[in-house]
Amino acid sequence: MADITISLPDGSSRQVDEGTTVGQLAASIGRGLAKAAVIGVVNGVERDLVAPLADGDTVEIVTADSPRGLFTIRHSTAHVMAQAVLDEFPGATFGIGPPVEDGFYYDFQLPAGADGKPATFEPDDLPRIEARMREIIAESQPFVRDDIPNDAAREVFADHPFKLEIIDGEAEDPTSVTETGTARTYENPPASPKERPPFRGHAGFIDLCRGPHVPDTKAHLGHFKLLRIAGAYWRGDETKPQLQRVYGTAWASKKDLDAHLERLEEAAKRDHRKLGAELDLFSFPEEVGSGLAVFHPKGGTVRRLMEDYSRRRHEAADYEFVYSPHITKAQLFETSGHLQWFADGMFPPMHFEDEGGAEGQDYYLKPMNCPFHCLIFQSRQRSYRELPLRLFEFGSVYRYEKSGVVHGLTRVRGMTQDDAHIYCTREQMGAELQSLLGFVLGLLRDYGLDDFYLELSTRGDSDKFIGADEDWEEATAALAAAAGESGLELVDDPGGAAFYGPKISVQARDAIGRTWQMSTIQLDFQEPPRFGLEYVGADGARHTPVMIHRALFGSVERFFGVLVEHYAGAFPTWLAPVQVRLLPVRDDHMAYADRIADRLRAEGFRADVVDAGEKLGNRIRKAKGEKLPYVLVVGDDDVDHGTVGVNPRGGEVERDVSADDFVDRLRAEVLAQTGGR
Amino acid sequence: MADITISLPDGSSRQVDEGTTVGQLAASIGRGLAKAAVIGVVNGVERDLVAPLADGDTVEIVTADSPRGLFTIRHSTAHVMAQAVLDEFPGATFGIGPPVEDGFYYDFQLPAGADGKPATFEPDDLPRIEARMREIIAESQPFVRDDIPNDAAREVFADHPFKLEIIDGEAEDPTSVTETGTARTYENPPASPKERPPFRGHAGFIDLCRGPHVPDTKAHLGHFKLLRIAGAYWRGDETKPQLQRVYGTAWASKKDLDAHLERLEEAAKRDHRKLGAELDLFSFPEEVGSGLAVFHPKGGTVRRLMEDYSRRRHEAADYEFVYSPHITKAQLFETSGHLQWFADGMFPPMHFEDEGGAEGQDYYLKPMNCPFHCLIFQSRQRSYRELPLRLFEFGSVYRYEKSGVVHGLTRVRGMTQDDAHIYCTREQMGAELQSLLGFVLGLLRDYGLDDFYLELSTRGDSDKFIGADEDWEEATAALAAAAGESGLELVDDPGGAAFYGPKISVQARDAIGRTWQMSTIQLDFQEPPRFGLEYVGADGARHTPVMIHRALFGSVERFFGVLVEHYAGAFPTWLAPVQVRLLPVRDDHMAYADRIADRLRAEGFRADVVDAGEKLGNRIRKAKGEKLPYVLVVGDDDVDHGTVGVNPRGGEVERDVSADDFVDRLRAEVLAQTGGR
Repeated sequence: MADITISLPDGSSRQVDEGTTVGQLAASIGRGLAKAAVIGVVNGVERDLVAPLADGDTVEIVTADSPRGLFTIRHSTAHVMAQAVLDEFPGATFGIGPPVEDGFYYDFQLPAGADGKPATFEPDDLPRIEARMREIIAESQPFVRDDIPNDAAREVFADHPFKLEIIDGEAEDPTSVTETGTARTYENPPASPKERPPFRGHAGFIDLCRGPHVPDTKAHLGHFKLLRIAGAYWRGDETKPQLQRVYGTAWASKKDLDAHLERLEEAAKRDHRKLGAELDLFSFPEEVGSGLAVFHPKGGTVRRLMEDYSRRRHEAADYEFVYSPHITKAQLFETSGHLQWFADGMFPPMHFEDEGGAEGQDYYLKPMNCPFHCLIFQSRQRSYRELPLRLFEFGSVYRYEKSGVVHGLTRVRGMTQDDAHIYCTREQMGAELQSLLGFVLGLLRDYGLDDFYLELSTRGDSDKFIGADEDWEEATAALAAAAGESGLELVDDPGGAAFYGPKISVQARDAIGRTWQMSTIQLDFQEPPRFGLEYVGADGARHTPVMIHRALFGSVERFFGVLVEHYAGAFPTWLAPVQVRLLPVRDDHMAYADRIADRLRAEGFRADVVDAGEKLGNRIRKAKGEKLPYVLVVGDDDVDHGTVGVNPRGGEVERDVSADDFVDRLRAEVLAQTGGR
Repeated sequence: MADITISLPDGSSRQVDEGTTVGQLAASIGRGLAKAAVIGVVNGVERDLVAPLADGDTVEIVTADSPRGLFTIRHSTAHVMAQAVLDEFPGATFGIGPPVEDGFYYDFQLPAGADGKPATFEPDDLPRIEARMREIIAESQPFVRDDIPNDAAREVFADHPFKLEIIDGEAEDPTSVTETGTARTYENPPASPKERPPFRGHAGFIDLCRGPHVPDTKAHLGHFKLLRIAGAYWRGDETKPQLQRVYGTAWASKKDLDAHLERLEEAAKRDHRKLGAELDLFSFPEEVGSGLAVFHPKGGTVRRLMEDYSRRRHEAADYEFVYSPHITKAQLFETSGHLQWFADGMFPPMHFEDEGGAEGQDYYLKPMNCPFHCLIFQSRQRSYRELPLRLFEFGSVYRYEKSGVVHGLTRVRGMTQDDAHIYCTREQMGAELQSLLGFVLGLLRDYGLDDFYLELSTRGDSDKFIGADEDWEEATAALAAAAGESGLELVDDPGGAAFYGPKISVQARDAIGRTWQMSTIQLDFQEPPRFGLEYVGADGARHTPVMIHRALFGSVERFFGVLVEHYAGAFPTWLAPVQVRLLPVRDDHMAYADRIADRLRAEGFRADVVDAGEKLGNRIRKAKGEKLPYVLVVGDDDVDHGTVGVNPRGGEVERDVSADDFVDRLRAEVLAQTGGR
């Protein structure tokens, strides 16, 4: 047999027999690699381990713990789950089932129940499906690839209408390939033939799939868990059947799976939607509508403190405070380009019959504040001496998000941005961007976030952007330079820019290591000329300013939601809606408790008193449940000696602390947390 | 001739000859009264002085300087103006011309000009019309009343199509009566017959009019001035012809006229729309739409200070801060009753096709915040221990005002209310209303307003209100009691209530004696049951709370507009957008000026520096034009000795003031103005 030469990622090359497969190549390199191998990347294309190699191929072995390896494991596990569901629920059929972040899902339609409608899964069904999955995995069923004519595929999937739509090109499936006339399938032949196999002419489970997969169901699979069931319309279309989506997670090892499940549990405890209700912070009343938050008194206090903080910081940083309405005639968003480029993200218009002549007049809710700030810039002649001009507004904007993607406070339809637009010369742009990055990182650190990286969103290859190439290049270079100066890691995000320019976004990792997109800084060479903005330069001539869009919180709502999760609802003392709760041991300590509370309030702290109507133990437990920074218990001795019993959140109880000392400590703690800002 | 008996307002009665007229009765009482008499009120009905009296009539003589007297003078002057316009502009015709506050107007259509469209008045036309009016007045033309059949009236007004519409009942005219089949006219026969009289079959000027009028054009008329020209659609309808409205003012004496013109001049100087542009405070960009204000940096600073002040005051007064979105599904305003009772004041809906099933979903901009606050109250079980619960929000609301009534910041379509809703028991209601009145008066005094009266707006006889009679009575009585306690004058306003309950509004007189409606306090027994709001009482049973609506500024926009007029743009130091301007005499004093400005800013003051690029005199003049509280001029001596030259607004220049002293004085001044609040 002739030898063939294979190149490896480290630049070395290797002679192997003709017909050697990817898996055999891995084995020839080492036993460890052979064991860890999931798939190979041959000349840039992912292939199964059984794929044969050709002379001159460049091959990278993908191992189980790499992102591509995990993606494959999750993809293969999705097939196993689909097989299990079709086994356990005869008559069920299936839609699409891709890997997603940390796991996978698959959409199913169960056979009709007694009411004639497709049945739905019960939570109890998940263990049953899992059990069947473990049997399938134990059987070591191989994943067998085949490319067959579409006609043959139609026969195989004759009982699976959703798959037929995919074969016919009516439905898109990112995990399958159906080239002209041909469909790719993967089959898992079972250890013992099924009684009534759900696919015509085949004994095993078959799916339309581009692959690749693990070699068999035992290889790398098994460290999985099914998590939840959700409804999902076929092809995301409300007019089509609603399917049952089963979500699962899968990992390369039990240890990784356990760690992930622990993170999920921790995240569930911190879920801001759950804590928002438990701590009475905010709600989303059904009568108001999806993605529209109402802040209750406690959440409102936190929000007011956040906004007060933001106002102070922006005042100190030479921002000018402006205000603009939430609605405008359509004309403004035509000038800005929003109605051409951002219409999908806007609410429908309010139509006035008796304005604007025979056609009436359309008014729109604003999705962004920038056009209003441009009007303010434009309202009189500007000189270079006024630049950089920094216009700040707490601007409430409304964006139309599909109800499926709306999520608590972190993805809303109504949001208030701590928004500013900076108008400057091209020469000032670099320094302004750099100082802005410093400003935003300082702000995030004040909120206990200190693990960051930056993302640079550029135009990429898409054509949904306005403006000249050289403007985009200059803007992107300026942002990249400012990002470089910060010393933070920089990740590229091609195609993620706003329609008018590229942006840097600050990504922050929270207390349990999750990444959140926070503040954004966008550069814009397009809107100023659209509005005809000009300033008179030192040379006496007219120039067009550059515009920087920036929101530091991003939106107050989203930042609030992230903070609730970051702090797990236990706000630091300076932000806590109630900082101190006074608990009199008995009724006759009430007057003293009130006196201490009044004193704290007079000093600007937020304190309340819960009378002795309930047992002390219950009251302490409740206060802990509310995650209050301090609970002060006062009894006979305290009344006599002017002391309090201090019960700090997460700390040791300390008795007989003089009230004076406690107030001093509290003041010092808040000052340390805010740095006096 | 038989005697008849007439009753007078003082309870006395008088015997006069049968056939005695109102004017003769006045003469029989005294020469002074005869001279001052304009009309009479006979048995409650206003009559001309020539009207004959009958036995048993009760008669009040109306004198020129009384409200009814002035009303008549203005009404008669409007006739004189119409006659003058028809004389001076042959072919002109006229619409409606009522007396209004302080004056009158009349709407005209001029004959077509060269372009075929009706011509328009030029400002120069006003003196020409005034001159002709003086001639008419000098002629002492009597006002001759006649009641004629409609057919005859149609003949008289054959060349005046707007009047024909009134005769036919198509157009409403508050100043005319056209009873079934009959029209009342007043004619002014001229001293010498006109060449081409504009009314068929009559030599004089004739108008449809219910009267009464002064006896002739010389009696009481003459103290008038024409003020301005405006466009106005016939019958207020955009689809009908646009007429030319001429406004004038008229008084009982030259002294009164002069005083009024002086007030107008003073008011024009203070017009917040003019000052808003001059001082660069705000604008109403055409692209945004009518009644939607944009606050520029200087206005934004004042607004932020006002809002900061309001937040502090409400925090100190135990209000809870909440936030709600600006839009909601229709359902919420159906529950609250707004869509049934306030729809005319609301913006049209935003219609979503892909929500809410086949019919789609309507979203509305909120015209009020109350329904959202009710949702917050409703979000969990409430106990009597939580009451009064005071929910506060800076809520931006949108109300549809006809474009004709929109006026600067004082009548807008988008406004931000410093809004709160107080939920309390019926027992707490009285004390809460009383403390609220104290709160609001204190706030108004902090803004330099200290001359008040109260208006009590009740349901009156109208049926555009919801709720039971006894609720309205109890609510009205509670408000009246609180108003009584305040010791302020109380004026009734029947029919002026909100649809859900009566209100007290605080009317404040400004620096030039004009009255502005400021804060309102409304009592509401209707919305809480509509939302099913309940609290658990001390008795363990469920009760419905009472709700108080109150906005202290009213709206921030309107209050801002009133303050600009009240202060004539010269904001007190604590509110001034720029408190101190530093002017270096020469360039080499710039560093010192910057140092002083930095120091002021570090102390929290708002200071800027204008360099020596322009002559000092010009810079001082500009600073005065901006109405800055302090201009500090610094030169050689100041640099050497650490002093400043203090140039206070409206005060004497003081040289060589130590910078330390100036900062101390400024601090003390601001503290005195705000009382540390």
